[in-house]
Amino acid sequence: MNKILTSAETATWLKERNDFLIITHRRPDGDTLGSAGALAQGLRELGKTAYTLPNPEVTPRYSRFVEDYWATDDYLPEHIIAIDTASTNLFPENAAKYKDSVSLCIDHHSSNTLYADLVCLDADRAACGEIIFDILMTISGSISSATAERLYVALSTDTGCFSFGNTTSNTLYVASLLIEAGASNKALNKLLFRTKTRGRIKIEGMLTSGLEFSFDDKVAIATITREMMDVAGADEDDMDDIAAIPNSIEGVCVGITIREMSSPNDCKISVRTTLPYDAQAICARFGGGGHKLAAGCTIENTVEEIKAALADVLRDFVDRKC
Amino acid sequence: MNKILTSAETATWLKERNDFLIITHRRPDGDTLGSAGALAQGLRELGKTAYTLPNPEVTPRYSRFVEDYWATDDYLPEHIIAIDTASTNLFPENAAKYKDSVSLCIDHHSSNTLYADLVCLDADRAACGEIIFDILMTISGSISSATAERLYVALSTDTGCFSFGNTTSNTLYVASLLIEAGASNKALNKLLFRTKTRGRIKIEGMLTSGLEFSFDDKVAIATITREMMDVAGADEDDMDDIAAIPNSIEGVCVGITIREMSSPNDCKISVRTTLPYDAQAICARFGGGGHKLAAGCTIENTVEEIKAALADVLRDFVDRKC
Repeated sequence: MNKILTSAETATWLKERNDFLIITHRRPDGDTLGSAGALAQGLRELGKTAYTLPNPEVTPRYSRFVEDYWATDDYLPEHIIAIDTASTNLFPENAAKYKDSVSLCIDHHSSNTLYADLVCLDADRAACGEIIFDILMTISGSISSATAERLYVALSTDTGCFSFGNTTSNTLYVASLLIEAGASNKALNKLLFRTKTRGRIKIEGMLTSGLEFSFDDKVAIATITREMMDVAGADEDDMDDIAAIPNSIEGVCVGITIREMSSPNDCKISVRTTLPYDAQAICARFGGGGHKLAAGCTIENTVEEIKAALADVLRDFVDRKC
Repeated sequence: MNKILTSAETATWLKERNDFLIITHRRPDGDTLGSAGALAQGLRELGKTAYTLPNPEVTPRYSRFVEDYWATDDYLPEHIIAIDTASTNLFPENAAKYKDSVSLCIDHHSSNTLYADLVCLDADRAACGEIIFDILMTISGSISSATAERLYVALSTDTGCFSFGNTTSNTLYVASLLIEAGASNKALNKLLFRTKTRGRIKIEGMLTSGLEFSFDDKVAIATITREMMDVAGADEDDMDDIAAIPNSIEGVCVGITIREMSSPNDCKISVRTTLPYDAQAICARFGGGGHKLAAGCTIENTVEEIKAALADVLRDFVDRKC
């Protein structure tokens, strides 16, 4: 039987133990990596031994915040901690062997499957980093600038620099304390939010000029083919939050991005909606899932066939306004 | 002799007086309008008579935050207050008659010419709204949701939703209190930062696909012609912060936007730089000015002639790395 811990109880549990290995999730983002790096840093400052499991999918954008703590193969941890990871299906391949022995999971996803012995879960937090902040502050009463830097990455990336709907008063309050503690928000924002690669700028230009509007301009569909990626010189790092573009256009309520993945018949569909439209329900028709305003699915078909199939399904939703 | 007031002294001054007219600046932005609306709202909640002078250049995006307080022509104020306005040159035309009789100016621009009898100036604040917050909190100890809403507009727009380099710990702390007080950050962020018009999306696509790189890709030049504006169906409201795009590209240190204004021979040049490059010095060569990292000038010539003239000037700066 697993047990739910408060952040204060989690702080006590960590304080009384040693030799930790911290796991981040597949397709790692700033929150899982920044939170893991911050926890490793904070625990080391308490004199403990703490490493993060190297995440094979880490991108250059985020590696500097976590690579200092990568464990070597011969590290034998006492306790496995999973961060920001709702289920063991989201474990990277090299973490598979720890699936049944996770001591503690710290997370903010309401969909957490409670696979760990102990779970510190707060679904009201925009970022897992907010929970790590509470835990580290409970343990030491202060945080170092190195920890603050990593937690700022976690908070700011999971909230689109505090612009997403998940941003709360607490998110901004914690962020203000992180800057007080030395997080270089100016440099980090420039790196994370105000710098675009040539590849990103080009793919955005191609995506927006190819947007197709339908259903009285309520639906906007963007397509990203592998050829476009090649021409733009864009890579995976350039794709962050790109699926938000179609639904960010005034009047659009259902924004869809169709992306060709490994082959022309393997497409990833991302759906972003504005209330009352239900992205999850739309994607469920194709066996996908997610949240009410942001969901996804995979369809094995050509882009043209997918557009036709989407149009059929969208007719049900857009006409019924749901 | 004018006198500098602290925000606490300003609070006392306001508390002891009545019948205010609040002036905003030319080409009004979210900070001047949100701050003015918040001050009018806050003063009215204290039982005072307070109006804002209608700003003829207000755009649809911001009018709802300030139009409830527009003064009618027959209003005879006792005290004139200028908000976020560094000099009387920035007064809208209908405020010209008040140039010599401004009782109080509340501002955060270090370039303030101290034209008012009393000046409450704090150049360390990212937004004038932060100063208005301090003043209203000193007077009443709390703020209403209507006031919080307007101050959130002020803070968030002047900091690019907390992403610009001017954002401080105090900015985020005040923003967290505004959300506590009822500011609907979710809806406001969607409106102000996560919604683009079709015109904006189109002009961005045209701008980025036409970018010209030079000086080993350190310089990026964007051109916005009147024809592009017509084709995109873009208007003034769509131009917010568009000059930031060229300098937001990885590796670019000098980003320049050339925009045809009323005629093909009347161009507005916006320069954004990354340290050590000095936007102000570049623009000074053409009789313009601004800040070190963001400056502008007007050149009466064709786009092609302007590009040639810029190349000559840029050679001095980019080669000398200054």
